[in-house]
Amino acid sequence: MTLDDLPTPCLVLDRTILRRNIAGMATALARHGVPLRPHMKTAKSIDVARLVLTGQGGITVSTLAEAEYFAAHGITDILYAVGITPAKLDQVALLNADGADIAVITDDPDMAGIIGAHPRPPRSLIEIDTGEARAGLVPADPMLPALAARLGPAFAGLLTHAGHSYAGRSAEEMARIAEAERAGIVAAAERLREAGHTVPIVSMGSSPTARAAADLAGITEIRAGVYMFGDLFQAGIGTHGIDDIAVTVLASVIGRREGQILVDAGGLALSKDRSTEAGPRDWGFGLVLDREGRRAYGDTTVRRAYQEHGVILLDPAHAIPLRVGERVRIAPNHTCMTAAAHDRYYVVDDGGAEVVAVWPRVNGW
Amino acid sequence: MTLDDLPTPCLVLDRTILRRNIAGMATALARHGVPLRPHMKTAKSIDVARLVLTGQGGITVSTLAEAEYFAAHGITDILYAVGITPAKLDQVALLNADGADIAVITDDPDMAGIIGAHPRPPRSLIEIDTGEARAGLVPADPMLPALAARLGPAFAGLLTHAGHSYAGRSAEEMARIAEAERAGIVAAAERLREAGHTVPIVSMGSSPTARAAADLAGITEIRAGVYMFGDLFQAGIGTHGIDDIAVTVLASVIGRREGQILVDAGGLALSKDRSTEAGPRDWGFGLVLDREGRRAYGDTTVRRAYQEHGVILLDPAHAIPLRVGERVRIAPNHTCMTAAAHDRYYVVDDGGAEVVAVWPRVNGW
Repeated sequence: MTLDDLPTPCLVLDRTILRRNIAGMATALARHGVPLRPHMKTAKSIDVARLVLTGQGGITVSTLAEAEYFAAHGITDILYAVGITPAKLDQVALLNADGADIAVITDDPDMAGIIGAHPRPPRSLIEIDTGEARAGLVPADPMLPALAARLGPAFAGLLTHAGHSYAGRSAEEMARIAEAERAGIVAAAERLREAGHTVPIVSMGSSPTARAAADLAGITEIRAGVYMFGDLFQAGIGTHGIDDIAVTVLASVIGRREGQILVDAGGLALSKDRSTEAGPRDWGFGLVLDREGRRAYGDTTVRRAYQEHGVILLDPAHAIPLRVGERVRIAPNHTCMTAAAHDRYYVVDDGGAEVVAVWPRVNGW
Repeated sequence: MTLDDLPTPCLVLDRTILRRNIAGMATALARHGVPLRPHMKTAKSIDVARLVLTGQGGITVSTLAEAEYFAAHGITDILYAVGITPAKLDQVALLNADGADIAVITDDPDMAGIIGAHPRPPRSLIEIDTGEARAGLVPADPMLPALAARLGPAFAGLLTHAGHSYAGRSAEEMARIAEAERAGIVAAAERLREAGHTVPIVSMGSSPTARAAADLAGITEIRAGVYMFGDLFQAGIGTHGIDDIAVTVLASVIGRREGQILVDAGGLALSKDRSTEAGPRDWGFGLVLDREGRRAYGDTTVRRAYQEHGVILLDPAHAIPLRVGERVRIAPNHTCMTAAAHDRYYVVDDGGAEVVAVWPRVNGW
């Protein structure tokens, strides 16, 4: 089976690039000696997880559907890194009774009390806000020791995510944000230790700060996910090479007219993510590559996206001499969003056209 | 089962509102005596199709996955309204050999020749561009008769879609666009009839122009889909009532802090569609309703959307006194995009909290 045999639109994963990205992060982290807990929210695939995990080690997930899926595939050490609710706590307890070891997070006093009073509480981390202002207690929050106390024996440590690193634009800025992330969560851990708590887990991370951190003293694990695939947004902020994007959407030409080509990958297949709009280069709804994933058409992009139609505006310097039915690949703005529209990866190696594997994804909730 | 028992995020469909929307379009079209060929690209559900179809009649679809699904559920008269490719033509021919009657569209001379030479060609329509400039031949295009000739006996008529009606902002403007859509495709049909072709199907439509058209003379069927559910974008352009949005996302509160609430519906559950940004009112990533779908929190919206986190910025005039685990509903910007992230509808009646049915959706390709 080759790329020409696939139904379009569909997701193509270049395993050679994926392996390179995995090795790159492993090298970046090796100098610190801090283990990676890969975030599987982007890949959502056991096959990808097996390439990332070398020997022992747990993962991070963003949904309980992922937690259940990975546990069923033998990965039991799982951190569910989205604030837990009472109903989801019961669901986690059931999965854990069934052999999983899913840890949860919260920043809410009521929820901490509910966890502490649960008959089978999972290991629970308190979320710390080190600058993103999305969730978590700031390190100096007076409630912090009380929250840990409410969790009781379930309290297992702290977690932070410097998601605001995505607004960074240089390696220096990323390194500064990484240090603030590290220093903030370590300060919170110290406060709790001074209050008599044991804080075994001090978990930080985002793909940009994992790579850019100069120092990880006091950190017990680091989380990163999107680095496995990369995307145009990550390329825009300088944390991923544009030629190192591992996942693309294969699309067929469905029409041609003066100055534009219509393809069968629209807003559903590409997502409506426009995160590159605010970046140094606006890639529309994605960068158009040739069937083998090569940058054969310059900076040509998908400029408009309807539900099932994508409009490629032709660059006069780069003709796309394709007929109806012939194929292009489209590199995504935000690979987490784009991949989630698809239920599987068609895997190729090293820019080849032969499909060497089909890997399912676990979508939904 | 009630809304409190559902895993979040998930999709809630109010059947009472759906029925009202269906009846409203039926009334709007009844004065013309032109049959509706409902577009199932938004609902993607046989249960919804059964409410829309009264007795005989076919449907429109946007993917071959939908075509296959609806044919398997007994709806065989199907128009696949996205430009066909050679590979998809073979797939349609197989489905048609198996009992379906899927019609296809093209605007491409090569593709028309491929259809004409196919051993089992489906009924084929030529796409006409009546102003959207996305696909189709303009009515006066000199190639039009040649395209019909290439299709040979497969040629079954014309199709147009005034998608640019979504840029309209008043009933008068929609009516003008509807008349241009009608006049354009009818002119194309007349040209072909003068050239000796029979043109049995003259298919036009979009939700705005279907509702606003003053005259449908010469039109044999009209297509519309998003009107069944509606969304904030359609409300913004005046084609749907904001209280008539049938589909919402049920989300749980996962955190609270000064001035904001965090919910477990982010960019994946809501979609990253920001179509209301350019409209008269920017609804962020969706309008926040209470658990029963009532507008209890004024104009409060989801202002930021991460993969699994949605940030609701609180309006000081409208407190949201909910604890972690309690629920809200979120009306979407663009229901076609939002619904596609979910594999089923949890159906309620008339603003109730009891789940009266679970209806699956057919996503993907």
